[in-house]
Amino acid sequence: MKQRVGQYLMDAVNAAGVDKIFGVPGDFNLAFLDDIISHDQVEWIGNTNELNASYAADGYARINGLGALVTTFGVGELSAVNGIAGSYAERVPVIAITGAPTRAVESAGKYVHHSLGEGTFDDYRKMFEPITTAQGYITPENATTEIPRLIQAAINERRPVHLHLPIDVAMTEIDVSKSFQPEARDDQDVSHYIQMIEDKLNSAKQPVIITGHEINSFGLHSELEQFVNQTHIPVAQLSLGKGAFNEENEHYLGIFDGSIAEENVKNYVNQSDAILNIGAKLTDSATAGFSFEFDIDDVVMINHNYFKMNETISEQVALPHLIKGLMSISYKNKSEFPMYQRPKEHDYQVDHEPLTQATYFKMMQDFLQLDDILIAEQGSSFFGAYDLALYKDNTFIGQPLWGSIGYTLPATLGTQIAAPHRRNVLLIGDGSLQLTVQSLSTMIRQQLKPIIFVVNNDGYTVERLIHGMKEPYNDIHMWDYKTLPAVFGGDNVVVHDVNTSHELKETFEKINAHSDCMHFVEVKMAIEDAPAKLSDIAKAFASQNK
Amino acid sequence: MKQRVGQYLMDAVNAAGVDKIFGVPGDFNLAFLDDIISHDQVEWIGNTNELNASYAADGYARINGLGALVTTFGVGELSAVNGIAGSYAERVPVIAITGAPTRAVESAGKYVHHSLGEGTFDDYRKMFEPITTAQGYITPENATTEIPRLIQAAINERRPVHLHLPIDVAMTEIDVSKSFQPEARDDQDVSHYIQMIEDKLNSAKQPVIITGHEINSFGLHSELEQFVNQTHIPVAQLSLGKGAFNEENEHYLGIFDGSIAEENVKNYVNQSDAILNIGAKLTDSATAGFSFEFDIDDVVMINHNYFKMNETISEQVALPHLIKGLMSISYKNKSEFPMYQRPKEHDYQVDHEPLTQATYFKMMQDFLQLDDILIAEQGSSFFGAYDLALYKDNTFIGQPLWGSIGYTLPATLGTQIAAPHRRNVLLIGDGSLQLTVQSLSTMIRQQLKPIIFVVNNDGYTVERLIHGMKEPYNDIHMWDYKTLPAVFGGDNVVVHDVNTSHELKETFEKINAHSDCMHFVEVKMAIEDAPAKLSDIAKAFASQNK
Repeated sequence: MKQRVGQYLMDAVNAAGVDKIFGVPGDFNLAFLDDIISHDQVEWIGNTNELNASYAADGYARINGLGALVTTFGVGELSAVNGIAGSYAERVPVIAITGAPTRAVESAGKYVHHSLGEGTFDDYRKMFEPITTAQGYITPENATTEIPRLIQAAINERRPVHLHLPIDVAMTEIDVSKSFQPEARDDQDVSHYIQMIEDKLNSAKQPVIITGHEINSFGLHSELEQFVNQTHIPVAQLSLGKGAFNEENEHYLGIFDGSIAEENVKNYVNQSDAILNIGAKLTDSATAGFSFEFDIDDVVMINHNYFKMNETISEQVALPHLIKGLMSISYKNKSEFPMYQRPKEHDYQVDHEPLTQATYFKMMQDFLQLDDILIAEQGSSFFGAYDLALYKDNTFIGQPLWGSIGYTLPATLGTQIAAPHRRNVLLIGDGSLQLTVQSLSTMIRQQLKPIIFVVNNDGYTVERLIHGMKEPYNDIHMWDYKTLPAVFGGDNVVVHDVNTSHELKETFEKINAHSDCMHFVEVKMAIEDAPAKLSDIAKAFASQNK
Repeated sequence: MKQRVGQYLMDAVNAAGVDKIFGVPGDFNLAFLDDIISHDQVEWIGNTNELNASYAADGYARINGLGALVTTFGVGELSAVNGIAGSYAERVPVIAITGAPTRAVESAGKYVHHSLGEGTFDDYRKMFEPITTAQGYITPENATTEIPRLIQAAINERRPVHLHLPIDVAMTEIDVSKSFQPEARDDQDVSHYIQMIEDKLNSAKQPVIITGHEINSFGLHSELEQFVNQTHIPVAQLSLGKGAFNEENEHYLGIFDGSIAEENVKNYVNQSDAILNIGAKLTDSATAGFSFEFDIDDVVMINHNYFKMNETISEQVALPHLIKGLMSISYKNKSEFPMYQRPKEHDYQVDHEPLTQATYFKMMQDFLQLDDILIAEQGSSFFGAYDLALYKDNTFIGQPLWGSIGYTLPATLGTQIAAPHRRNVLLIGDGSLQLTVQSLSTMIRQQLKPIIFVVNNDGYTVERLIHGMKEPYNDIHMWDYKTLPAVFGGDNVVVHDVNTSHELKETFEKINAHSDCMHFVEVKMAIEDAPAKLSDIAKAFASQNK
């Protein structure tokens, strides 16, 4: 079959499960965009800028399993590197495609726009090396090998890859003998490691699993839960990867966030004599500044491409194979463990007093519905939301390792597009909203109906708590947030104004009564108020910076 | 004298001429921001995001001679790379400072937020190598040598540099024996090259100078003009660097943009037997796709660190020394050359018909005042504006080599801050405005009073003309642009609505009558209308992509 490279690439990306492509046009990708527009199974989602597009592709990929981004050479791809680096850090697979000058322009070393003006064309590709798991320069000759290699690498590693696609290459016809299909990896022999884990568990009195984001990345929820149901080993999860374990499972312990965890969780984990870290990463933000009491060297590390127990280290073993292996373990838990205490419903006063952060999150707990996607911006929103009790079918999205403020508004564009029939609830603050606000216009353009809560507390609260409570650099300029949907053409957006718990309750009722539109809620809270855990973690961060 | 490294750095940046620092706070730079806030001579300009901050620092540097940007590790600095790369390409010196995790965190390889979560800390620094002229990791031991080296490199090369500043280093006290002062470079012996040029000129019948952006970067306007006044060699300038030569000088020929230049300019340049390229770069966007008729190998290239004539090449000679050397040339021009034809004033009809691009730019010519800073966004605005006739004291700012759409709104924030008493006039389109719109809020916060013309023609016109006139990827979502100033708290912004030349004339009159506020003008024009030169250059770009 004859196909243009651009068509082959779109077929391959689509075969890997992607049906929406995020990006921004530029003259070095325009002709390739024709192959996106004309493709039956994929849809182009034009974004207002490339950073927002990269965040949206990340959000889409977190729900869909894989995402794709198309930018132009230089100015486009470089605006997206922060988003791509975040996908790399948190293991979200995004195919980042750069439309580039033709091979003729490149080999002549021409001084073209979007280049550095010195006749070099590999500068930006080099910049993608630290933040992508594989990179490739696509040619007509290598297209049918490189494109499969790169897409497969993104899937295998759950990390972004970068494709440099000269625009003449995209338009070149090639012979395609076989369309791309993603392949499962060959099974790996993990029996040695599994035996080690089994021995450790069987000699332990108080085993525990700490789990996290790699379970979400690799979609291993049911495998992990099956292992837990077989063994009854209690499970703590990190805020980094919340949603990795079903919080309705009776073996769920709660969130472990170091010294600030609930007493029963903290004590059980810290005193455990067999900690299995499964797909989790004990980062500063997940552990209140590494404030755990166990010896990290005693932890069995079960991560993607990283198994470590005592002196045994392997950097070869894929996480799905290890977790599959766990299910063969013969073990009967003899220990007692503390049961997870779901937050009490309605544990707050509804009144006409100014709303507090504490009440806001308690009320949010009651607002949560069974299969909501809950997206929480790094800052007050995330540190308040990660203690909310999820239902089995909820999805929770935050970005506590990468922690790029402004991420969640465009990410919600992506999650809502990936799951158009699920309710998407975004919790964000004013400072973060300002970074990427134009994504709201793309949501409106796409007729999406997320529910957006914007906390207006006049500044960068997370930074204030770390350093400079009253310093001017933590102030932001006040916007009339409620007018934003109208500016962006949102005639099907209901705007709400919340100052008290009474108003929040009324707003919840209105939202629940009118699900067929976007809701945009401005929630005013006091400038120095913050979720308790944010204050604690901010102290840990301040201390870490000494 | 004892000083914290942060204080020493701010003193050094200030000694080099910077009094405003652009950036966004983050926990790895907060303590350092205290040394900015408390500095008597520098002011912190908080931005809504890092890309916008980097564009603003670039705009400030183009007027001020040097700029500075402070971001946080990872998420901050990576959002700024597009802006920094643009500064690199177009030779704008910006000191890019990243507040980073402490040395203790780094040497322990901790999994901290904003890292890639793998214990490495040099990934982002590597990413800055292709787009900065020098990079450094600041320590207490090297601060008094590295900081001077880096600032001096930015000044010498007129390009950005990157400083990685661990936050504990910023707060460490050091002994400072000598404060930094930028130094002029040692004179270089350029007599050999100057003699070559003199010989060439004296054997030529029709010499011409093509000049461009490096004259602006190095501030060599008066030196160049003195050389021209001595020799009477006619000067053409590129759109890339418009403003390099005084357009009121009698030896000015006009803009040379390849095949689309005015006939007299085109013919004179193409038939010249001695082309001196002084500080210019013959890029695709400046020459309508390299559509010049002379042999590039015959051109005498006088660029920064690049002199070339016939077989002689030097990559050592600084542009200021070469241009200083030119003034010693003994030459008397014997040739006749065509005089520059300034556009005729009032060469348009004022009526109630829909405004056209052609009339818009003709009217803009009459609107221009003697010392305006005119900023033109890459796209219709730039390709329409670069043929406007400037006065001697005008400054023109565009970005045709890097060509990142969205650049000029934040850049105008920077230029207006650098020149608070000059009138800043920004010409931008709707598609571009959407990328970086939140900078408008920073302008309002800073109580700036630029005049902003936003052409609303419903999409990416420059892209439409290159490829896909009616394709959906070139559409954008319609905003209610005129409401933006109010959303961003602009109670001292006058908003204007222009549909006809009559309304534009009235708006000009209102603007001229009320100079003590920001003016925000929405100018509606037809979707397929474009400045003639944009259409021509778009065809060249389309052809280059084949």
